[in-house]
Amino acid sequence: MASYLITGTGRGIGLELVRTLAAKPASEVSKIFAAHRTKTDALTELVSSSGGRVEAVPMDVTDEESIKQAARQVEKSLAGKGLDVLVNNAGVLPITEGGIEKMTDLESVFRTNVTSVHWVTTALLPLLEKGSLKKIVNVSSTVGSMGFVDYTRHLSCPAYKVSKYALNMLTVQWAQALEDRGFIVYVISPGWVKTDLGGPAADLTLAQAIPAIEEVVLRQNKEDNGRFLDVVMPGFEPRYTNRFPPW
Amino acid sequence: MASYLITGTGRGIGLELVRTLAAKPASEVSKIFAAHRTKTDALTELVSSSGGRVEAVPMDVTDEESIKQAARQVEKSLAGKGLDVLVNNAGVLPITEGGIEKMTDLESVFRTNVTSVHWVTTALLPLLEKGSLKKIVNVSSTVGSMGFVDYTRHLSCPAYKVSKYALNMLTVQWAQALEDRGFIVYVISPGWVKTDLGGPAADLTLAQAIPAIEEVVLRQNKEDNGRFLDVVMPGFEPRYTNRFPPW
Repeated sequence: MASYLITGTGRGIGLELVRTLAAKPASEVSKIFAAHRTKTDALTELVSSSGGRVEAVPMDVTDEESIKQAARQVEKSLAGKGLDVLVNNAGVLPITEGGIEKMTDLESVFRTNVTSVHWVTTALLPLLEKGSLKKIVNVSSTVGSMGFVDYTRHLSCPAYKVSKYALNMLTVQWAQALEDRGFIVYVISPGWVKTDLGGPAADLTLAQAIPAIEEVVLRQNKEDNGRFLDVVMPGFEPRYTNRFPPW
Repeated sequence: MASYLITGTGRGIGLELVRTLAAKPASEVSKIFAAHRTKTDALTELVSSSGGRVEAVPMDVTDEESIKQAARQVEKSLAGKGLDVLVNNAGVLPITEGGIEKMTDLESVFRTNVTSVHWVTTALLPLLEKGSLKKIVNVSSTVGSMGFVDYTRHLSCPAYKVSKYALNMLTVQWAQALEDRGFIVYVISPGWVKTDLGGPAADLTLAQAIPAIEEVVLRQNKEDNGRFLDVVMPGFEPRYTNRFPPW
């Protein structure tokens, strides 16, 4: 009977996570708030076929007022109940031709990938405190791992790397702050998936990736608080073999 | 005969670094550009007693136009010569009462501590390419180390931690980009010093810290490119014993 709010659900991983959760019995998943900037046809269809379990929530994560407005909608809809799980999934991955010397989008990417998570978390915290699972899952990436900089060197997305690296430190601080109140707060890397964000050269189809992403999102282990978790997928060695990637 | 540009030289570590370099013979240090937001009396005095070797450069590191203007002044002053060493030292350390849940300064601190470094580096790159040492030293902090989060947990400066952590990833990407052109780009932690930024409870006086900071700033090792270097100070064990702290 858990309730979820997922950001970035217009398409890609966010949309597929909503679809996957909506396919579970109501005894497991009571409600999914699908926060989106653009209400795509796919999301609209999911909402209307969900029998009320999926609720679309307009939210521009780069706009704090929009987030507060969305939080009010969620609070009203929950009618006194708490929110169990927040998945901060919205994000951007811009490619910078010419590399870091030509990077002009550091702050805008930081806003979308890091500040947004802070704002959404802050706005929904009162509802999460009333929830029973008290879980916050932030979608980061091993592309932003210091331990992998030699492998990711050829990827020309400098602002994305800084932002995901920074998101990890933001998350750990939230994990420290909320630990005593029973929260589990962690970052995950969802793998490199063929979405609009990941591009056509990615490792995984959405169909391949979603079960592994679902597994890591649905974990409910106290020990995960403050951790960085990767998807684990047999058959894609040497990738996706290590549950705990380097920061 | 090396030339330096140091940011944040109105006071604290930046000012003392300028003073230390200015005390060296002209055969070692030809010119020091002291970039500052506020031209303090102490800096004014340093400039006037330097016989032209210390030049004050007005620069608000939170304003890209101000940085570009400063770069034009430096270029004109160098009159065709290159700049050898850039020390990105300017930064802020705001305390957030109530911890990360109350943090509202994430973006402003990111601007001052991270974006600024990117802007200054980008603006001065043409002059640094003409320099002979080709060195960029970014002042970070082990307070922003993921490896030390258990030790720094009690320090309520969440935006600072995120910003210094992010600065490390920014720096490593610059190090990767400039390596083939003979640059050495690294981050340092200057220790916890009794300055306006560090506060009166800090470990070290400026007089104690500056020789160790100078040592790490003046290193000229190719192997340092992309590294994180700490000050090493015998007599302060268990602190300041490890030249290479965790990220």
